[in-house]
Amino acid sequence: MTVPRKLRCAMVGGGRDAFIGRIHRHAMALDGRIELVAGALSSQPEKALASGRDLGLRDQRNHGSWQALLAHELSLSAEERVDVVVIVTPNDVHYEVAKAFVEAGFHVVCDKPLVHTSAQADQLVRAVAQRGTVFGVTYNYSGYPMVRQAREMVKAGAIGEIRKVIVEYHQGWLATRLEQGANKQAAWRTDPARSGVAGAIGDIGSHAENLVATVTGLQIESLCADLHAFIPGRRLDDDASLLLRFRGGARGVLLASQIEAGCENDIRLRVFGSTGMLDWRQEEPNTLVHAPIDGPRKLFSRGSPGLSEAARRACRLPAGHPEGFIEAFANIYLGIAADIDARLAGTASDPLVADYPRIEDGARGVRFIERTVASAASERKWTPMA
Amino acid sequence: MTVPRKLRCAMVGGGRDAFIGRIHRHAMALDGRIELVAGALSSQPEKALASGRDLGLRDQRNHGSWQALLAHELSLSAEERVDVVVIVTPNDVHYEVAKAFVEAGFHVVCDKPLVHTSAQADQLVRAVAQRGTVFGVTYNYSGYPMVRQAREMVKAGAIGEIRKVIVEYHQGWLATRLEQGANKQAAWRTDPARSGVAGAIGDIGSHAENLVATVTGLQIESLCADLHAFIPGRRLDDDASLLLRFRGGARGVLLASQIEAGCENDIRLRVFGSTGMLDWRQEEPNTLVHAPIDGPRKLFSRGSPGLSEAARRACRLPAGHPEGFIEAFANIYLGIAADIDARLAGTASDPLVADYPRIEDGARGVRFIERTVASAASERKWTPMA
Amino acid sequence: MTVPRKLRCAMVGGGRDAFIGRIHRHAMALDGRIELVAGALSSQPEKALASGRDLGLRDQRNHGSWQALLAHELSLSAEERVDVVVIVTPNDVHYEVAKAFVEAGFHVVCDKPLVHTSAQADQLVRAVAQRGTVFGVTYNYSGYPMVRQAREMVKAGAIGEIRKVIVEYHQGWLATRLEQGANKQAAWRTDPARSGVAGAIGDIGSHAENLVATVTGLQIESLCADLHAFIPGRRLDDDASLLLRFRGGARGVLLASQIEAGCENDIRLRVFGSTGMLDWRQEEPNTLVHAPIDGPRKLFSRGSPGLSEAARRACRLPAGHPEGFIEAFANIYLGIAADIDARLAGTASDPLVADYPRIEDGARGVRFIERTVASAASERKWTPMA
Amino acid sequence: MTVPRKLRCAMVGGGRDAFIGRIHRHAMALDGRIELVAGALSSQPEKALASGRDLGLRDQRNHGSWQALLAHELSLSAEERVDVVVIVTPNDVHYEVAKAFVEAGFHVVCDKPLVHTSAQADQLVRAVAQRGTVFGVTYNYSGYPMVRQAREMVKAGAIGEIRKVIVEYHQGWLATRLEQGANKQAAWRTDPARSGVAGAIGDIGSHAENLVATVTGLQIESLCADLHAFIPGRRLDDDASLLLRFRGGARGVLLASQIEAGCENDIRLRVFGSTGMLDWRQEEPNTLVHAPIDGPRKLFSRGSPGLSEAARRACRLPAGHPEGFIEAFANIYLGIAADIDARLAGTASDPLVADYPRIEDGARGVRFIERTVASAASERKWTPMA
Repeated sequence: MTVPRKLRCAMVGGGRDAFIGRIHRHAMALDGRIELVAGALSSQPEKALASGRDLGLRDQRNHGSWQALLAHELSLSAEERVDVVVIVTPNDVHYEVAKAFVEAGFHVVCDKPLVHTSAQADQLVRAVAQRGTVFGVTYNYSGYPMVRQAREMVKAGAIGEIRKVIVEYHQGWLATRLEQGANKQAAWRTDPARSGVAGAIGDIGSHAENLVATVTGLQIESLCADLHAFIPGRRLDDDASLLLRFRGGARGVLLASQIEAGCENDIRLRVFGSTGMLDWRQEEPNTLVHAPIDGPRKLFSRGSPGLSEAARRACRLPAGHPEGFIEAFANIYLGIAADIDARLAGTASDPLVADYPRIEDGARGVRFIERTVASAASERKWTPMA
Repeated sequence: MTVPRKLRCAMVGGGRDAFIGRIHRHAMALDGRIELVAGALSSQPEKALASGRDLGLRDQRNHGSWQALLAHELSLSAEERVDVVVIVTPNDVHYEVAKAFVEAGFHVVCDKPLVHTSAQADQLVRAVAQRGTVFGVTYNYSGYPMVRQAREMVKAGAIGEIRKVIVEYHQGWLATRLEQGANKQAAWRTDPARSGVAGAIGDIGSHAENLVATVTGLQIESLCADLHAFIPGRRLDDDASLLLRFRGGARGVLLASQIEAGCENDIRLRVFGSTGMLDWRQEEPNTLVHAPIDGPRKLFSRGSPGLSEAARRACRLPAGHPEGFIEAFANIYLGIAADIDARLAGTASDPLVADYPRIEDGARGVRFIERTVASAASERKWTPMA
Repeated sequence: MTVPRKLRCAMVGGGRDAFIGRIHRHAMALDGRIELVAGALSSQPEKALASGRDLGLRDQRNHGSWQALLAHELSLSAEERVDVVVIVTPNDVHYEVAKAFVEAGFHVVCDKPLVHTSAQADQLVRAVAQRGTVFGVTYNYSGYPMVRQAREMVKAGAIGEIRKVIVEYHQGWLATRLEQGANKQAAWRTDPARSGVAGAIGDIGSHAENLVATVTGLQIESLCADLHAFIPGRRLDDDASLLLRFRGGARGVLLASQIEAGCENDIRLRVFGSTGMLDWRQEEPNTLVHAPIDGPRKLFSRGSPGLSEAARRACRLPAGHPEGFIEAFANIYLGIAADIDARLAGTASDPLVADYPRIEDGARGVRFIERTVASAASERKWTPMA
Repeated sequence: MTVPRKLRCAMVGGGRDAFIGRIHRHAMALDGRIELVAGALSSQPEKALASGRDLGLRDQRNHGSWQALLAHELSLSAEERVDVVVIVTPNDVHYEVAKAFVEAGFHVVCDKPLVHTSAQADQLVRAVAQRGTVFGVTYNYSGYPMVRQAREMVKAGAIGEIRKVIVEYHQGWLATRLEQGANKQAAWRTDPARSGVAGAIGDIGSHAENLVATVTGLQIESLCADLHAFIPGRRLDDDASLLLRFRGGARGVLLASQIEAGCENDIRLRVFGSTGMLDWRQEEPNTLVHAPIDGPRKLFSRGSPGLSEAARRACRLPAGHPEGFIEAFANIYLGIAADIDARLAGTASDPLVADYPRIEDGARGVRFIERTVASAASERKWTPMA
């Protein structure tokens, strides 16, 4: 066993007060495979520099803008230059930053939703294809071991042919008009200029879409959406309910809401097949319920023997030692790191290890958001995805 | 305290092999308030008589047809005649039997869905109004104490203004083409001639509709339905997904499926208001979850002190001594019995006791089924209820 | 199928304000197999008569004392005389009533704990053996279908050789000095003259002992008890913790407390064997957890296919339609009724149906209480059961 | 806000194949406050060096023995020397390593149980007192936010005066004679020479003891233990059941077993007070149940508003984003790091931050193990702790 060297990483966005940037840093740190060495941590230069100092970045690699970061990295030798750039800005900045770093040949990790429009997404897909770089999108829920177990069980036919999919994402943190106060997360997420055409359906509905696609492999054929902003004055949807029809005949329901007072971060996926059901809830992520048609329910636990290889590899700890959100997030990073390692070593990556959402997943998510918004505006029942 | 005399009851339908008739008899027996003394327990005379003998009915009150039962009862003195007639036949027979007994002045309990068409329902409503009789519809889930607690908490403002309602009813027993075998329940429920225009949405979707109406008091303004029969050859829907819009601005989702292999009888209602959420699941019926916006979740338990008067009265046992399906069903009967007692005594009934679904609930349920079927056939997104 | 006639029943105790008498009546009524026709419902003649009138007893069978009841029943013909006498008085009265009715040849149902002393218990065992009558003790928790499923799985070797048993019974209703107020249940249960030598260990610990014996078949060899009355002034234990050693080498823990504020009626049994574990909790009685050593946990549900015959027969409703405390209690009565039916028919009873706790279980429970009290008073660690 | 520099750390033990050393490294890495720069990762020099290379240790700080590590560290300047030494060897090595590093003035983190004998523990306590160094013992379960919430609620009187404590630790991984195979964890844990006088009671019972002490602050006055080795040939207990009496009158039960096939890592603490109950289970660590005597149960969730300051500070993520075992472990490290930071800065440490188990906790744990073993060998019921 040769242990590969730590990867060098730069972060764009994620400065003081940011939520998701801190999560990315915990996730990178957990397994010691990636080291943060450079950054442009805010669009405000002063704040960017202060944030970088908090994190112990050396002055020469602590930048006031992503353009400065890019220029400086390009001036460094391959031995010093970062391997990967992590983009954790608000959504509106994703596109230009991602495009610039991809075109400059950097591997990239970008938060979701990927960009504002399908046109941008398609361009980015092309750029990545052209450069042949690694591009991960942090649909982090797909990093949970028991989500991977569900995916493998579906593939192995454990529930037969899929008939029905119900995915729900319930949050309550926007149940009041939080964006009028000091809450920066609420402010940009409800601002069309920064968040894009969608609110809840973009912020969390896209996670739900990705979870369905990851576990079932099904493709949405058409959808019927009801979007609403319950909070007076809010400019983007804060509640979404969709009926789905999948290619091949399966049907589904997708719910995403941020105004459900009393809810925390309640994502749940149920997949019903001809011979059984799978049920996973993010708030109790260490268990996967399998209800077969012909016997007692089974509770698969993370870390226990008998899991699929893909799930087993995503576990750090034995059963009964709970892993959570950061660990799942870190699994995405482990997959991305493994893919970068393979590029650096000039080998093919092991698909069991390089298991992470790709730019195509990100692009499909953008299209899902667009079509949902189109459906919500339509009086026709079904809006095709294509 | 004067204890009123036991009420005398006749049953139509519910003979050998019937499912729901037996439940009604358990429910009646539990509290000793109603005594089964007469019956026409099947549309097949031989089977009717044999079923009556099983139950210990005296020969002269054990009939081969409901017409014979009606004729005989009318020949009896008021001291002998039954007080109430329970109709537990397949759906297609409800209308004529109910109409005949109501018009003859009997109090009636009828299983759901009430009848096949709104026209029938309206006629029945008129007949009941004319005769002034008691008419209960056994939407039994409204008999659970914690459903009543939820209703009272909504009324008392515990979750503020209702924004969103999610009601689900998951069953798996029709996941295969059971109707081709010996299963009588499956056979008539999937036969349009007997079950009416709807399958799952009629059989269990109507329970879901009633649960929403009972707890929230909201009225559906328009709906958007996707109905499907997943099992090849099945003539009625076995899966239903609906988006709902309520008068006053609340939105909702109603799911009802009988092909979800691995599910048992999983009815759940969540009501999201501006200041919190209520969550009740029939498979764990002794608990009601209340998640307020500003503090820890609370688990209200059946039988515990501090419940609303309406919930408290629906409990036979202290907390920790589980009550279930039959007890909830029996609460409907207690409500109906109390209303009949009041008529017999010439007094007004106590609304806290005479707490049961009325014929208007039954009629609204029929309209809901019809409009759902209409929506499913429409390419327009929204179909109005009115 | 010949349906046997309804059994005629008399009740001793259980008048107005009584708790357990009402439960017995619900349990008898549920299945329509037993009819209450006579009674001596209180030791206070006036209250006895009023209570009987509440229940619709005819005057000539409504008595002011159990002695009058006995005398009158003996004067009746076999066609009128009650088949079974139910004793639901406070504990101190059990012995003399039970003995008198057994010796007069009546079948008897007696609440637990059976009597005050092992000497009384032994005499009663002898009397029953002599008369050959049916004698059931309402250790009602053994009536739950999933308890029977656990028992059958243990017998079938599903968890291998038993190593460890943990049984817990947590209540909180005596967390304050309730007996000083108007609570009659609290008053007699904390009064040595009426309740016997034990408080919590007698009232609920004996249920726990019976649950262990029922499911595991193990016999306690020796025990080590710590009993305590936490409430100042209380004369009987309100909290008990025991270490157990069983014949054959298994070990165990038995906990019973009535001062655990916040608890309701939380009985739980876990049985750990060499190849797996079974876990059942009364507050969620429709599920039995089986955790095998080599695979995912399984949740067996009441009413589902694949249960043992003994469990299946104890279910009235299909899976997902919860049954509770009264249904379990009624299963005890169904077993007793089946045994009486067999005596009346002069046939052997089917052990799958005549499944109920016998007088020997009651006698063993009395001995368990006595030895626990002895152990609590001893400075030696282990007190033998024999 | 000045962010303190990263602390430099050396690890003794924890090489390839070790379980707990890897956990310590994840825990240290998670928050980026501590950097592993030196090590002697195994008692086998070759394996030690290979393990250090895996982790990227520089050659000159990668040692074949702890003695070499100590000598080299002492040769370094204060700017290079490690701040803290982490001891994650099997138990038998703890004492000499800990003593040497403490006496040399290093801050130390040591895994539990601390040492083999009370005599050793007392000497170590004296050494730490003399040098004034920081010494943390990784009773990691006390790092869970909801354990801290429980502790603060007890302190604040939320459940009144404590009457009863039930702590359980159920594992099944030693249900077979695993130590005869290649499992190194099983081998040393069941070997008296390495593990000490106790098996399960030392390995996991000591966690249970610490959890009780942490949350309740109660001190055990006397105990009554039943220890057993269920697996033939096993030389140390694999199952322990204890009755406890605490100073001041509270009583308790402590269970610890490693042969409960089907169990994973099921630690649970229940504390019953005069006005309510607290209940926490490690396998669902993000929730704390509070059952007050006079109202509905409350579920406190990690990360939600309204928690105590001590719990809030132990949360990295908002509610609904599960944190697990590693995060709790990392909280212990954050506490230790904060205390070391304060020493380095010459200031007093904030007790809300420097929240971790001290050497006194470790020493008390050793005494608990010794007294438990003594009790198990005694025929007297109660063995005093003192």
